[in-house]
Amino acid sequence: MAAGGADDPIEHLIGLLSRLPGLGRRSARRAVLKMLMRPEQQMLPLAEALQKAAEAVRPCGVCGNLDARDPCSICRDPDRERELVCVVEGVADLWALERAHAHRGLYHVLGGTLSALGGTGPEDLSIQPLLARLAEGKVEEVILALPATVDGATTAHYLTDRLRPTGVRVTRLAQGVPIGGALDVLDEGTLAAALKARRSV
Amino acid sequence: MAAGGADDPIEHLIGLLSRLPGLGRRSARRAVLKMLMRPEQQMLPLAEALQKAAEAVRPCGVCGNLDARDPCSICRDPDRERELVCVVEGVADLWALERAHAHRGLYHVLGGTLSALGGTGPEDLSIQPLLARLAEGKVEEVILALPATVDGATTAHYLTDRLRPTGVRVTRLAQGVPIGGALDVLDEGTLAAALKARRSV
Repeated sequence: MAAGGADDPIEHLIGLLSRLPGLGRRSARRAVLKMLMRPEQQMLPLAEALQKAAEAVRPCGVCGNLDARDPCSICRDPDRERELVCVVEGVADLWALERAHAHRGLYHVLGGTLSALGGTGPEDLSIQPLLARLAEGKVEEVILALPATVDGATTAHYLTDRLRPTGVRVTRLAQGVPIGGALDVLDEGTLAAALKARRSV
Repeated sequence: MAAGGADDPIEHLIGLLSRLPGLGRRSARRAVLKMLMRPEQQMLPLAEALQKAAEAVRPCGVCGNLDARDPCSICRDPDRERELVCVVEGVADLWALERAHAHRGLYHVLGGTLSALGGTGPEDLSIQPLLARLAEGKVEEVILALPATVDGATTAHYLTDRLRPTGVRVTRLAQGVPIGGALDVLDEGTLAAALKARRSV
């Protein structure tokens, strides 16, 4: 807006940045202004990092994780338990589980969940590649770490049916009260699930 | 976190993005993930736009605005009233005034305000260049559009003193109730200023 028209590099940059999730036009403007104060220290390194990532990062041909190497660093890691595969909806979930340092096996990214409304059928998800991985006979347990939504539950049911013939053990994440969660703000579904799945102490 | 170590291009990119104002690590991660889904459509254009902006955009030698041209598009604009110069603290303020389409003259970016605590003295601000512009004799009025803070008021007082010998008319933005502002949530200072500057209807 400071300068003239749509071919203005500042306006163009603000427009692109404001399309990122979490950034509105206002914060995109602030970010661009901050970077323009030190273009060599802030803008060029970011430009370079974006270009490098765009060129280097690809979905892992084995699990679907995004990484600069294929197979990805997790699939290559010799310390990972290769008989344990955690099935997730997307890469964001894989990253969240990695941050929790809770899973010591491998992953498989479905690329979505079954959704009648969204028009997502089994053929849209990475289910055949998962079956192919299991057919190699090394996997002993598949953990379904799918979202606790209707579509997530539908997908889990479908996968359980599809995986049964393989003889692999299929488990899913426990449902219950989140750590640090106050009971009075929890929804009824979670409370009911936690009560039903209660354990002896 | 998905891949290994500090030289991972994804981690590196998340780190750079999360330094932008308005983006934390969490939203930077979301943004990177979204872009990685469509690298050619989202990441490379952004990388290119950043590089172009970093190379092309420089402070205007006349007013201090950031623009791909020098003098900037505003200083070049033949429709602007050249006898009216609005003095602002920073480029963000200039952009805000431009968005308001309220100023039809030129600008002068001070690059800060006087601050005893911050150690900002008159020599740190673009005051000499402003006096040099006025010495050309074409400017008739200087509007001080400085923040309504202690430092802003100090700077306005100082500038008024410095500009007096030039004979140029010096004005400042009106203070009062913001448009759409409910009285009961306004601070006392604004209410007092609005009452003091009351006008006949």
